[in-house]
Amino acid sequence: MGRVKNKLKDRKAVCLLSGGMDSATAMAVAAAEGYACHALCFSYGQRNRWEVGAARELAGRMGAVEFRCVKLDPACFAGTALTDRSVKVPKGGIHRGCVPVTYVPVRNLIFLSYAVAWAEVLGCFDVFIGVNCADYSGYPDCRPQFIAAFEKAANLAAAAAVEGGGRYRVHAPIIDMSKRQIILTGSKLGVDYSLTRSCYDPDPEGRSCGRCDSCRLRLKGFAEARLKDPIEYRGR
Amino acid sequence: MGRVKNKLKDRKAVCLLSGGMDSATAMAVAAAEGYACHALCFSYGQRNRWEVGAARELAGRMGAVEFRCVKLDPACFAGTALTDRSVKVPKGGIHRGCVPVTYVPVRNLIFLSYAVAWAEVLGCFDVFIGVNCADYSGYPDCRPQFIAAFEKAANLAAAAAVEGGGRYRVHAPIIDMSKRQIILTGSKLGVDYSLTRSCYDPDPEGRSCGRCDSCRLRLKGFAEARLKDPIEYRGR
Repeated sequence: MGRVKNKLKDRKAVCLLSGGMDSATAMAVAAAEGYACHALCFSYGQRNRWEVGAARELAGRMGAVEFRCVKLDPACFAGTALTDRSVKVPKGGIHRGCVPVTYVPVRNLIFLSYAVAWAEVLGCFDVFIGVNCADYSGYPDCRPQFIAAFEKAANLAAAAAVEGGGRYRVHAPIIDMSKRQIILTGSKLGVDYSLTRSCYDPDPEGRSCGRCDSCRLRLKGFAEARLKDPIEYRGR
Repeated sequence: MGRVKNKLKDRKAVCLLSGGMDSATAMAVAAAEGYACHALCFSYGQRNRWEVGAARELAGRMGAVEFRCVKLDPACFAGTALTDRSVKVPKGGIHRGCVPVTYVPVRNLIFLSYAVAWAEVLGCFDVFIGVNCADYSGYPDCRPQFIAAFEKAANLAAAAAVEGGGRYRVHAPIIDMSKRQIILTGSKLGVDYSLTRSCYDPDPEGRSCGRCDSCRLRLKGFAEARLKDPIEYRGR
């Protein structure tokens, strides 16, 4: 086991890190598997402007080798609730079976494309993403079939894969976990969830609303894990 | 035929437009098929800094409804000849069977991801890209199998496709054409090739080198089409 870990220590992975609890847990899994983590975050005018700072702090505390924040030009993403203040974030509870207005057009397709580009430059083949189906609540680009299709496309696009150097692998270690399982897994691996941000619509002081889909899923997860959520909520 | 064309006139397409002759020809095909073209260009620190201006002018002259240039953060693309001045552009002639240093990591994967994001915002399902296999000379992300795999991944990622609104289609109308065929096709459709740029390494006045892979393929295409290339070359 020691030898396997040492061998892996030379292996880099690009870890998508949003500042939320899912991606922090996914990166903790990567680190526990012995990868040297290169954290990749995106700034795209998201409503929760604390996310990027949270990602940067998490990367530092969790021992990432490097942290990069890529600024996405929002020109292609206008008109969704996460980036556009004229669209209201729904607070009435989670509705399954339809795509929520908080959806950002093919976000994970773009994030993963950048991750593979950076992996190719770094000379590595492993990418970690914290997508999750329980958190799915309508986001199509969080489903296993999308991840598999993306992996196939990436391996046809990338010179490093075509030249036989290796095969890109998109790891989605928490894809099948419930929020409870994610929190228990991350807690065991030492993730400090007080640093993570989940709210779609925090107040000007950065406190979470407690009522958007993302807050509801998070609070439910902590309740089911019988742990106290360490972040601050407005009016609690 | 007139009715089909009129019906299509209401249909928008996102057309990737680089400023080169291939993408200009692909957009001309889209326009000829009756699509209202929304041109999308990328600025990513490319060595040929005239490309974006050429794309903008082409979009205007060719009647595109809109032109957008998305600035890509170059953080993920360091170390390739197209963006990094410390890497030399090869001028010795085209070598088949290996990926050239002018390769930019999974560029078309990123470009197409943005195109689908914008298409989703625009409410359309058609994307045009000027990839070409004759021009392939080692770029894996120009192959038909990549385009097909990307299309599949995009349709799994995008809410608009999942909700049954339609299916994204990536059109690559010149993928099988020789450079000669591209030039003849575009000329018939009225593409003004004097506005296009192809050189990987133009001089400070913007004149093409005539010796990089891209110039060689272009010049060969014009010679085979028995047409004069209307752009200026250094020392000719």
